[in-house]
Amino acid sequence: MPKFEHDKNTKRTDAMWKTQITPRFSETDAKGHINNNVVPVWFAAGREAIFRLFSPDMDFTRVDLIVARIEVDFKAEIHCRTDVEVRTFIRKLGNSSVQIGHELWQDQHKVAEGTAIMVHFDYQTKQSSPLPDGIRSALQQHLLESTESNAQQQGHPDQDIKAEGLSHQLS
Amino acid sequence: MPKFEHDKNTKRTDAMWKTQITPRFSETDAKGHINNNVVPVWFAAGREAIFRLFSPDMDFTRVDLIVARIEVDFKAEIHCRTDVEVRTFIRKLGNSSVQIGHELWQDQHKVAEGTAIMVHFDYQTKQSSPLPDGIRSALQQHLLESTESNAQQQGHPDQDIKAEGLSHQLS
Amino acid sequence: MPKFEHDKNTKRTDAMWKTQITPRFSETDAKGHINNNVVPVWFAAGREAIFRLFSPDMDFTRVDLIVARIEVDFKAEIHCRTDVEVRTFIRKLGNSSVQIGHELWQDQHKVAEGTAIMVHFDYQTKQSSPLPDGIRSALQQHLLESTESNAQQQGHPDQDIKAEGLSHQLS
Amino acid sequence: MPKFEHDKNTKRTDAMWKTQITPRFSETDAKGHINNNVVPVWFAAGREAIFRLFSPDMDFTRVDLIVARIEVDFKAEIHCRTDVEVRTFIRKLGNSSVQIGHELWQDQHKVAEGTAIMVHFDYQTKQSSPLPDGIRSALQQHLLESTESNAQQQGHPDQDIKAEGLSHQLS
Repeated sequence: MPKFEHDKNTKRTDAMWKTQITPRFSETDAKGHINNNVVPVWFAAGREAIFRLFSPDMDFTRVDLIVARIEVDFKAEIHCRTDVEVRTFIRKLGNSSVQIGHELWQDQHKVAEGTAIMVHFDYQTKQSSPLPDGIRSALQQHLLESTESNAQQQGHPDQDIKAEGLSHQLS
Repeated sequence: MPKFEHDKNTKRTDAMWKTQITPRFSETDAKGHINNNVVPVWFAAGREAIFRLFSPDMDFTRVDLIVARIEVDFKAEIHCRTDVEVRTFIRKLGNSSVQIGHELWQDQHKVAEGTAIMVHFDYQTKQSSPLPDGIRSALQQHLLESTESNAQQQGHPDQDIKAEGLSHQLS
Repeated sequence: MPKFEHDKNTKRTDAMWKTQITPRFSETDAKGHINNNVVPVWFAAGREAIFRLFSPDMDFTRVDLIVARIEVDFKAEIHCRTDVEVRTFIRKLGNSSVQIGHELWQDQHKVAEGTAIMVHFDYQTKQSSPLPDGIRSALQQHLLESTESNAQQQGHPDQDIKAEGLSHQLS
Repeated sequence: MPKFEHDKNTKRTDAMWKTQITPRFSETDAKGHINNNVVPVWFAAGREAIFRLFSPDMDFTRVDLIVARIEVDFKAEIHCRTDVEVRTFIRKLGNSSVQIGHELWQDQHKVAEGTAIMVHFDYQTKQSSPLPDGIRSALQQHLLESTESNAQQQGHPDQDIKAEGLSHQLS
């Protein structure tokens, strides 16, 4: 029962960034529900809380975080009638990469979940770059231990390595 | 060297569905490149070839394929100046699920790749439903053996099982 | 001075539906600002208040309002850093059509304005259909007299007629 | 009969830029057709031919054309099954502004039409700037005389003036 799962994890939920979103009719598709491709857009909106740590004046163009990978698991149909909540947290902190977890809730149900791997990147040296200490500390406030339900989402052990080796491919 | 990799895999490439897309200026973001969230949209456009197998009159609303999971790996920045090609193929055929592979090419480089797991679903019984034989045969024409580079994308062994157990969660 | 204009029109503003929207980084373009094509999407989100009058259970698929025409005037660049407010009101009520006004405000400035003409449509007879009395009354609460600044937006005198003659073209 | 209208205007049609677009399932909405807000996106894609006149290397970020106004008239439902063609032409050339006409065709029917007013802008002086002579000549190749059907779309006589006075409002 999702309601219960939600309640008993209050501490866990408290450590998450929460973003309320009102689904738009333009985000539905001919199947009558929210189109699948909207969920990555909403998850990206949830990640803007992290951008704000990097740019207090919210100039996102100066945020040198590259998205290396996204994953989304669709759990249930998402409808247009009620607001959704994107919950965002840190799954893992690498040297220069961050593994971000996302959950999408609607009407007390978790309707989707996902992961984004972002890499801190130095556009001048064209290499991944260590996360600044202040930001690392801020991110750690939102680092949540894995629960059974998301264990399978933690990805392959070499994903961060792979992400951190991304640099040479980017112009 | 992506050019070489492309050339030597002609047979492999021939078995893929190919979709040419002209990037739109509205698909860029303030970083100056195509926004990450556009790639799942383009991959979904690549999958429409599969929908056509299910609905010869292209009434996609009657195609009972549910997207259970998507994954995207971003390899390089995607720009707005030249067309891209989405290459789509079958990675694995389950009883009721299909694991679809996607590659995104621009200027002879593979700039992104991804996976989508779709489940054939019976909306009346609210259960996953075996892929019809005719469609299974058609899909097999596009089934490509794994290469080293996408092996890591094949996902966890239980992903199909998980996808096929999706049914009870869908209203 | 937009601030002043805003303040002195409190009564006018009070009669508008207001929709707060947090711009998404994915809604910017390579020019560094919100892409023009996002504004019609936001204005459509502002119109959902009107759909709710037609469908109390918010089943927008049962709302038989056809968009016949939209107009948008872009007044200033829209950035991603601060929330915007869409203000929506009724400009004119025809027999079966509604002319809707939209304003987009950011940081106390009106950055865009627009119009949408919607027609109440009977899908069975394939003709425009008079607005139900109860809805007409509700809409009248939001009917604002024209001000100089939007007079030029009121469109040609025959626009409603044209909109109401739309029906025969729709399958 | 749209087919006939199409045929007899061959010369007119020849002078238009034509952009083929395959509608995406993600561009439909719960009403079962292409969402209204997609049409401005497609029309903007049609305008990229004009950007190319300004930037031969297609660096659209260096194209100093500001969209001042858009209008769209929706004529018929647009479906997802067949390709559409965006036809783009010049309605009027001002000193620094261009009034662009758009038509959207599907299955031999004109399903939407629209207008965009763009202003050539000097970001340094923050003022509208005369269209360069070479570009003016190129645009004139696509200047079409008004026909009865689009006369009503030519807008108010002061629209160009208004558009050209836009400059002081832009930061």
